[in-house]
Amino acid sequence: MTDTTASTTPAPDPAAITTIACVGIGTIGGGWAAYFLARGYRVKAWDPSPHAANRVRSLIDAAWPALTELGLAEGADPRAISVHTDLAEALDGAEFVQESAPEVLEMKQRLLADIDRHAAPGVVIASSTSGYSMTEMATEAVHPERLVVGHPFNPPYLIPLVEVVGGEATDPAAVAWASAWYERLGKSVITMDREVPGFIANRLQEALWREALHMVANGEATVEQIDRSITDGPGLRWPLQGPMLTFHLAGGPGGMAHMLDHFGPSLRSPWTRLDAPELTQELRDAVVDGCDEEADGRTVADLVVERDRAIIAVRRLVEQIREGAA
Amino acid sequence: MTDTTASTTPAPDPAAITTIACVGIGTIGGGWAAYFLARGYRVKAWDPSPHAANRVRSLIDAAWPALTELGLAEGADPRAISVHTDLAEALDGAEFVQESAPEVLEMKQRLLADIDRHAAPGVVIASSTSGYSMTEMATEAVHPERLVVGHPFNPPYLIPLVEVVGGEATDPAAVAWASAWYERLGKSVITMDREVPGFIANRLQEALWREALHMVANGEATVEQIDRSITDGPGLRWPLQGPMLTFHLAGGPGGMAHMLDHFGPSLRSPWTRLDAPELTQELRDAVVDGCDEEADGRTVADLVVERDRAIIAVRRLVEQIREGAA
Repeated sequence: MTDTTASTTPAPDPAAITTIACVGIGTIGGGWAAYFLARGYRVKAWDPSPHAANRVRSLIDAAWPALTELGLAEGADPRAISVHTDLAEALDGAEFVQESAPEVLEMKQRLLADIDRHAAPGVVIASSTSGYSMTEMATEAVHPERLVVGHPFNPPYLIPLVEVVGGEATDPAAVAWASAWYERLGKSVITMDREVPGFIANRLQEALWREALHMVANGEATVEQIDRSITDGPGLRWPLQGPMLTFHLAGGPGGMAHMLDHFGPSLRSPWTRLDAPELTQELRDAVVDGCDEEADGRTVADLVVERDRAIIAVRRLVEQIREGAA
Repeated sequence: MTDTTASTTPAPDPAAITTIACVGIGTIGGGWAAYFLARGYRVKAWDPSPHAANRVRSLIDAAWPALTELGLAEGADPRAISVHTDLAEALDGAEFVQESAPEVLEMKQRLLADIDRHAAPGVVIASSTSGYSMTEMATEAVHPERLVVGHPFNPPYLIPLVEVVGGEATDPAAVAWASAWYERLGKSVITMDREVPGFIANRLQEALWREALHMVANGEATVEQIDRSITDGPGLRWPLQGPMLTFHLAGGPGGMAHMLDHFGPSLRSPWTRLDAPELTQELRDAVVDGCDEEADGRTVADLVVERDRAIIAVRRLVEQIREGAA
């Protein structure tokens, strides 16, 4: 079965792809399937559960109105999915594979090796894992060079973010291919050049979650207060401007440079549970330059205008949604 | 000047208040002034800068379209503000005082004592401070019982959150009065029963910010990646559902209880920089009960529907704003 030429077989031309395999179609894999269908692809799914086919059809039906509202690709068909219990059958003809099995390392290792054995040469295989590195998961695969992580956020059909990273044995070309492919699909892709446990978004979320748990544990805040402090506070800014740009604006006309140069010492506030890194010149410059790049010529005043428009609009939306749900 | 009966003078009836003093009208104080004007109040401002009057009028003019869009109170008048350089004059007739001076402890101590000396008996005096506790700031005031923290988020005329907390010498009645007053003004008020440095939202923001700085310092992520991981990821959920409710949904139909009981061990993920608190039964119950209260009868499925509607709507908004700004 082993095809030793696979590593030199080029990956399919993204523009010519018609068929995608989804291996594991629970909440995440099923969400991916719904998204691929909405983008106009045919999906072949594999799942060992006898209920998988019914469940994924329900999930697709539930997601379809939202996907329609966001805009379907020409020819998108919610019924263009077949569910298989034989892995080789599901992978036959697939030009890209998204694996979304449960987070059990041994299962992932075996499954990725099996997928690698059956998928056509050159086809890139992505794992939705949130918990393991590809270096850990690829140990049993014959062609680890084509295995990448493509970590989505739930629900994968609505949240644009996908974090892409390879393992030690992954060919950088496979990482580049996967990133370009997800971008073609309309995703917001973050390509990481090293394996960081938790990737980026989960590390940030986890820091916030742990701080929140400390506050509850110490009786400093209730669950409701924590959530409201975000939904009615900084959460109103974050869909448009992330945490770094938020501090860029907090620096006034001088932006992040002013913020770090003048308030840098507050990085050493004694009250936070998470120690700050040392504010070296290098870190200072990386943060300032990063904000300038993101601002892309927009002054802080321009960004303030954008922020304010977003806050007003987001507030109105949330009110409408709450009223609709009441 | 000292009026020893002040502590027993009741605070004004919020429904009868017509005049508010804003002490310090930079970005925060000026933002407060704009908000009070939009709610139909007359504002008397004090600021030592000769440019303060012009600056605050520009700020109010810039904020007014947004405030109009959010809905003005009857009779709201952007010109109903007078700017004084004499503190006693500014405070004459004020039924509530919002102090927003620079974050310099000695200045705050002196200024709050001066305000306390000139403000009418019973009038509650709130400080916008983000950095000091009222216990630290009230040391020179004769009537510390009426001094509270009313910490807004920038810009105070758009972000609903206000964190209210008293100092050791504050009368709990003043804290309760301030909370009711801000709520009457349309604010989302979090009343804290103890002084926690950084309050709630800033502690959460700070944990995230520090984790982000560590990632930049270690070359694990760029500034742009950090921001995009939020704006295109969890940031799309946070205006409607905070971080706790986000994990409630991540638990599936069983919600937070399932999440903590089954994935509790992941609280001990070795990869986070901030240690998690011990997941005691008490903490577990506080978090689970808090989520149930917030859900207020809505099932996880109901919340998923709300979340998805919000994500779609927020995504469209952000697209429109970006196109408008391009």
